[in-house]
Amino acid sequence: MELRKIAKRVEEKHGIPLTERDVVRVFSAALASADIWRIVDLAEIPVLGTCEVLEALAEQGWVEFKNGRVIVTETGRDLAVQLGIGAAQEFRCPRCRGRGLELSPFHKLSQKFHELAKDRPEASQEFDQGYVTEETTVARIALLYARGDLVGKEILVLGDDDLVSLAAALTRLPRRVVALDVDQRIIQFLEDAARGENLNLEVYHHDLREPLPSELLKRFDTFVCDPTESFRGYLAFAQRGISALRGPGCAGYLGLTRLEASLRKWQKIELALLEAGAVITDLFPNFHEYVNWPYIETMRAWPHLPVKRVPGKFEPWYRSALIRIELVEEGKAENVRYSGDIFTDEEAATT
Amino acid sequence: MELRKIAKRVEEKHGIPLTERDVVRVFSAALASADIWRIVDLAEIPVLGTCEVLEALAEQGWVEFKNGRVIVTETGRDLAVQLGIGAAQEFRCPRCRGRGLELSPFHKLSQKFHELAKDRPEASQEFDQGYVTEETTVARIALLYARGDLVGKEILVLGDDDLVSLAAALTRLPRRVVALDVDQRIIQFLEDAARGENLNLEVYHHDLREPLPSELLKRFDTFVCDPTESFRGYLAFAQRGISALRGPGCAGYLGLTRLEASLRKWQKIELALLEAGAVITDLFPNFHEYVNWPYIETMRAWPHLPVKRVPGKFEPWYRSALIRIELVEEGKAENVRYSGDIFTDEEAATT
Repeated sequence: MELRKIAKRVEEKHGIPLTERDVVRVFSAALASADIWRIVDLAEIPVLGTCEVLEALAEQGWVEFKNGRVIVTETGRDLAVQLGIGAAQEFRCPRCRGRGLELSPFHKLSQKFHELAKDRPEASQEFDQGYVTEETTVARIALLYARGDLVGKEILVLGDDDLVSLAAALTRLPRRVVALDVDQRIIQFLEDAARGENLNLEVYHHDLREPLPSELLKRFDTFVCDPTESFRGYLAFAQRGISALRGPGCAGYLGLTRLEASLRKWQKIELALLEAGAVITDLFPNFHEYVNWPYIETMRAWPHLPVKRVPGKFEPWYRSALIRIELVEEGKAENVRYSGDIFTDEEAATT
Repeated sequence: MELRKIAKRVEEKHGIPLTERDVVRVFSAALASADIWRIVDLAEIPVLGTCEVLEALAEQGWVEFKNGRVIVTETGRDLAVQLGIGAAQEFRCPRCRGRGLELSPFHKLSQKFHELAKDRPEASQEFDQGYVTEETTVARIALLYARGDLVGKEILVLGDDDLVSLAAALTRLPRRVVALDVDQRIIQFLEDAARGENLNLEVYHHDLREPLPSELLKRFDTFVCDPTESFRGYLAFAQRGISALRGPGCAGYLGLTRLEASLRKWQKIELALLEAGAVITDLFPNFHEYVNWPYIETMRAWPHLPVKRVPGKFEPWYRSALIRIELVEEGKAENVRYSGDIFTDEEAATT
């Protein structure tokens, strides 16, 4: 069967594990939109996989690339009907953008955060940055609040180009907020904001490849991070977070995309989280929406795109899931040093 | 510390694993509402645990039971402030009730489903039944649709007092819908509806403790079930579902409560799902809202409630998460016979 062959071909060429179902996902996405970024978003498989599947579909004559758009051909549409493949649908609630959270109680926080964030440092490729929309950061705070992980808590943010620590501290509800980052610009920015607003927010320079300093171990109730998505890199971030938690009942929040992590990798990551003593309590797909970073044209996936167009800054196509974990036993995470490149693997798109 | 002692006491008395954090959850819930059912709902721990924690909090003089209500005392409020414990909050989107899904495209389906469901069989304690609201069933269909698990698919529903098979078939979008149930009333009801509406819906009598008949093995793209929540019972349902799936790329939908399953049990269940070859792609807490069943006063938790009140039929307090899994490798599930009581364990509340 042709779809299965395509999956196999992509897997062989790029080392990205792909099922026939993943090929259908790309096809469904193309049936829903002619825009390359919307297709990448809706397909929910690693970006390079989507590029390669689109090329393969074009070779079969099922799609064509025309004036910078992806068009499903007549033959393609016939095939879709024959195979029972429908156009991708989201049915996303227009009020909460699919997050299920009501943000109106956070109106003042949003305003203040917006005012402060307008001078934030731009995302840097050097540190694999790319920050989420302001609304996303506020929604994260709302979720922490709703899950009992904000009020009276000690919170650690591991890598904070999203400025979660700032938003958390602005609520004045946590007992303590600590942010770690490797980027001096972020550190400076957070420190200035903390001083200016008189916030209970501490910021330290730290490269997450290095073990956590001992004074941060087993000291926090909540951690938040948006890990780099190679399997090793993801584990590095997650293990740092888990080793910072006091013990059972403490919680962590992690981002995870479908665009740089196959479901096979998801399975390995979830297994590692469970084995570290945690349970997954929440997993919201597409919770995080990202502001487009300035290095689109130098990112790894760019040359592979069958159709090239630089998306607007606030034209979201890169989204990720939010995973909440909670320790149900003592955390089992090693606090070791990671050397070498922990940012890239076959499924990487943006580094 | 007193809260830890309470957790330990409940664990020893009922065999329900409880953390200090779980005690705080009950306390937070009591700070948010004086109504016993709302407290049970918001506390998100096994019902018997909530009952026992409330008794312990009362002994400490932190709450009291008065005119059928649960009141946090002055001392209790002082303690909450001192420990930084806030009232439980949901911040639930009022449009989608926290599910993130827009149901207006399903208006006609909802109407038709409502019309048909009004004559449904009442929930029976004998079969551990308790069905979700009609809106919940429609929301499940919307999610199946959005995830590509409805259109053109072969769908198996394992135990169907929620009438998911009926709603799925009414869309006329799946290739095939099969429902299994042990209750002749449900079978009869679904068969009558299928005939009356000329639906592509097959219904079979099957006790899920028995292995699936071979003609249903590896035949489906999607399964849906709302398992009984003893660990053994949960696995029985999940394994039947997984063994019915064709292979990688096929998906399953399962309900799971916090009210009859501790997070420890959640961890064991998630581990079993991953080890069976699946990945968790979505986990929405409180996706399912249940219509109150007629056997509230004979359910296991009733005598333990510190305050007794029969809730109204459409006054939802029992909710559950929706977990979507997808196979990323061949399903590894045994299709064996389960004997004895698979419905009850220490955390059971409703059986």
